[in-house]
Amino acid sequence: MNAPLSLAATGRPPCIALLSRVLDMRYLVPAFQALRPDIAWRTVETLDKPEDIDAAVCWLPPPGLLRTLPNLRLIQSIGAGVDHIYADPAIPPDVPVCRIAETGMADGMTTYVTWAVINHHRHFPDYVRNHAQGLWRESPIVPPSAHRVAIAGLGRLGMKAAGALAALGYPVSGWSRTPKSDLPAGITGYHGAEDLPAFLAGANTLVCLLPLTHDTRGFLNAATFAQLPRGAHVINAGRGEHLDAQALLEALNTGHLSYATLDATPEEPLPADHPLWRHPRVLVTPHIATRTPAAAIAAQTLENLLLIQSGKRPDTCADATLGY
Amino acid sequence: MNAPLSLAATGRPPCIALLSRVLDMRYLVPAFQALRPDIAWRTVETLDKPEDIDAAVCWLPPPGLLRTLPNLRLIQSIGAGVDHIYADPAIPPDVPVCRIAETGMADGMTTYVTWAVINHHRHFPDYVRNHAQGLWRESPIVPPSAHRVAIAGLGRLGMKAAGALAALGYPVSGWSRTPKSDLPAGITGYHGAEDLPAFLAGANTLVCLLPLTHDTRGFLNAATFAQLPRGAHVINAGRGEHLDAQALLEALNTGHLSYATLDATPEEPLPADHPLWRHPRVLVTPHIATRTPAAAIAAQTLENLLLIQSGKRPDTCADATLGY
Repeated sequence: MNAPLSLAATGRPPCIALLSRVLDMRYLVPAFQALRPDIAWRTVETLDKPEDIDAAVCWLPPPGLLRTLPNLRLIQSIGAGVDHIYADPAIPPDVPVCRIAETGMADGMTTYVTWAVINHHRHFPDYVRNHAQGLWRESPIVPPSAHRVAIAGLGRLGMKAAGALAALGYPVSGWSRTPKSDLPAGITGYHGAEDLPAFLAGANTLVCLLPLTHDTRGFLNAATFAQLPRGAHVINAGRGEHLDAQALLEALNTGHLSYATLDATPEEPLPADHPLWRHPRVLVTPHIATRTPAAAIAAQTLENLLLIQSGKRPDTCADATLGY
Repeated sequence: MNAPLSLAATGRPPCIALLSRVLDMRYLVPAFQALRPDIAWRTVETLDKPEDIDAAVCWLPPPGLLRTLPNLRLIQSIGAGVDHIYADPAIPPDVPVCRIAETGMADGMTTYVTWAVINHHRHFPDYVRNHAQGLWRESPIVPPSAHRVAIAGLGRLGMKAAGALAALGYPVSGWSRTPKSDLPAGITGYHGAEDLPAFLAGANTLVCLLPLTHDTRGFLNAATFAQLPRGAHVINAGRGEHLDAQALLEALNTGHLSYATLDATPEEPLPADHPLWRHPRVLVTPHIATRTPAAAIAAQTLENLLLIQSGKRPDTCADATLGY
C-alpha cells in the first residue's frame, strides 16, 4: 500500500477530530500514528481550537458540532453507512462526507449474511435444539437451487453477499434505487419502487442491506412483509431504523414469516425485556456483522484528506441529496 | 439433458436391483419409471431370478449378494462415496462401481460446510445462547482473512467447498492423496503423508471430506488432533468411520480443540445417551449435509449402464485398488 509514503510526503501534520456521542473513539489513535507519527488529534472534550481541525472522523457525532469547525475539509464515517452523519441537520453543506470501503468489511458482512441464509434454509435451529435433546431427526432437505434469496441494497456489501450466495447455488436477486450495470453473473436485478412487488414476491429469504435514507427508513414494515411469500425469512443487516419491530412480530405470529435474523434493531443495545429476545423464531445478534479495522479507517481518512487538499473528489464520497 | 432420449432408444428394458440393508430403496422407482416407463426392478426380497439383473443400485448392500448376480454390468452407489459397497469383500471384481456426481449434491454439502465454518469462526453458538438470555454481548470479531480453513479431501465436494470458502475471504488449503492440477485460484494444495503435518499445522478449522478407504479410516484421531493448532475446530462431513469419538472428546476436554461439528458419527443414528450429544462444544447433525435427488440417481444409473453396454467406461467409476 502506498498510502503511508504519500501521506508522509505532505507538509504540516493533519489535525483529526474523533467525534462520537456513543463510542470512545480514541481506539483509532494508534492506527493514525502508525501512518503519521506526528498527527494531531482531538476528541469532543478537547476541541478547544476548532480552527485547527482538518478532518472529522465520526460515528454518531454530536449534532451541531461539525458546523463549528471552520477549516474542516473532510467528514469521514468509520463505516459503510453515513446516515449517522446526515442525521445532524446542521452539517456544513460543502464538506465532503466519505464512507469506508474496505474488503475486510465486506467479507465480514458476507460471512454474517451467508451464515444467516443457510442457517434457516437448512434448518440448523432445529438441529441445534434436537442436539440438546440427543435427538437424531432429519428436517426437510431443500437444495439451495430451490431457495430464492433477495437482497435489498446493492452497494459494496450487498454486491459481495449476492455473489457469494449465488456461488453457493442460491438463485439470487437484488434490488436497488437505480439500475446496476455491474451485477455479477446470475444475479437478477430489480430497481425502483415499480420493481419492488416482483422482487419481494420472489424472496424465500429477504436480506436488508440498504443504506438508511429518508426513503428506506422503515423498509421492513407490514406492507413489505405482506408482499413476501408465506414462510419467508427476513434478515436485517442494515440499520435498526429499517425495521418496524411490531410489524415483524405480528407477521411471525400469524405464521406469514417463518424466521427473522436481526443484527440491527430499533433500540441498541436491545433492552433485556424486549419481546424480540423472547420470540422463538427470532435471533438477535448485537450489531456484530462486520467491523472496519482501525488501520483501514486511518489510511482512508488520510488518503481522502490528501485527495481533497489536491482538489480531487474521493470516490467514496456520499451524495448529500441522496443521503448515502 | 439427452439421457431420456438415448435411454429410450435401447432395446430390452433394463432390470435394476435396488439393494440396501438399511434403506427402503423403493423411493427410487418413480424416478426410474419417469425415464424408462418399461423398466423392470427388484429389491432384496424379490430377487428370485438373479440372472435378470443388469445393474445394482446400492446403499450398504447385503454382503455377498452382488456376487450372486451373473449378468451384472454396473454397481451404482446412490451417493458420492462407494466405501459402503467395497465393504463387501465378495463384490465381483470385474463389474464397474460408479459414484453419483451431481451439482445439487455438491451445493448441499457446500452450504453445510460453509455454515459450520462460519458458525464457529463468528461465534454464533455464543450469540444463540446469549439470545435466549436477552444478553447483548459482543464476541471477538475476527476477519475471515485471519481464519485458515483446511479441507482434507479434494474430490468434487471438497473442491466446491474450498472454492466457496475462498470466495468468502478465508485462506483455504486442501489436502489430497495425489497432487491436484485443477485447484481453484487461491487454494494452497498439499498432498500425501509427507505434507500432512504442514497442512494440519495451518488449520484453524479442519474439514474432513475424505473418501473412506483403508488409508483414511480413523483419520480424525488423537495424532491428527495433536498436530492442529490449539483452539482448532473440527468438522466431519465425511464418514463416521473417519472419527475416533473418544479421541475427539479428550481433545475437546483438554481445550486443545475448541469445537466439533459432526454430520457423520461412528454410530448412526447416534444413541441418545452418547456423550457426543451432551458435550457443550459439539454439534451433531443427523447425516443431513447433502442428498442426491432420486432423478439424478436414476439418470446416471441408466446413462452409466448404456455407456458400459457400448464398451465405454463412465468417468464416475471408482478404482477398486484405491477403494474410492
